[in-house]
Amino acid sequence: MTVCALCQDEGGVVLVRQAEWRLVRALDTPAFPATYRVIWNDHLAEWTDLDLEQRRRCMDVVAQVERLMREHLAPTKVNLASLGNVVAHVHWHVMARFDWDSHFPAPVWAAPLRAIDDVQQAELAVRLSVLDQAFKAHWA
Amino acid sequence: MTVCALCQDEGGVVLVRQAEWRLVRALDTPAFPATYRVIWNDHLAEWTDLDLEQRRRCMDVVAQVERLMREHLAPTKVNLASLGNVVAHVHWHVMARFDWDSHFPAPVWAAPLRAIDDVQQAELAVRLSVLDQAFKAHWA
Repeated sequence: MTVCALCQDEGGVVLVRQAEWRLVRALDTPAFPATYRVIWNDHLAEWTDLDLEQRRRCMDVVAQVERLMREHLAPTKVNLASLGNVVAHVHWHVMARFDWDSHFPAPVWAAPLRAIDDVQQAELAVRLSVLDQAFKAHWA
Repeated sequence: MTVCALCQDEGGVVLVRQAEWRLVRALDTPAFPATYRVIWNDHLAEWTDLDLEQRRRCMDVVAQVERLMREHLAPTKVNLASLGNVVAHVHWHVMARFDWDSHFPAPVWAAPLRAIDDVQQAELAVRLSVLDQAFKAHWA
């Protein structure tokens, strides 16, 4: 029996829970603490397993996550990705990238280009707690 | 003067060209020949630089690309990504992944896990030429 990790577990710290989706902050990407995930609650594998209206609602959430992320973190770039090769359950990674991060401009999945900057990461952690609250407030 | 690569160049073989966007097949990812890109023609950096209706139209194209890709290639998984760390001009990667490809289930940007399978790649190339035509026909 195969158990889906995103059916069994939350996939991070749950910030917002709605009937169709949940927004979590990932805890399993320490080099990229500003990694949020919009997870579709139903177990569907591919983006086009969602119907048109579901995709629109899901992507409107992704856009709002990006918008608040830009407002609160002013990242160098936002990265969006829905891969699901390991966990084939629709989830969007919304990641704030910074020119000082360990991999920039390479993707987070590539080899690191430099060490993690502990000072920058500590400052970012403070802003993430504010951003978490902004997400909660937006969908309250 | 900085020149944007996706303003200066097409970004691949152009299959469909519309006023707002173009669909290209990438030529710069030989390990992943089933890499298509939906490129927003205007030079905008972030997904939320597009307005709501633009995002919906763009994502409807991405979904249609995925749908035809699934129909013609039956991939193990489709990967969607909008990163733009190097070229900050909105473009969606729509990539068909196969359990036999050199990186699966790792992301295409990670280290390879096995050699490229030339036999599978040759067979895939035939199906890609059919898929290319399906894209052209859909938006004709």
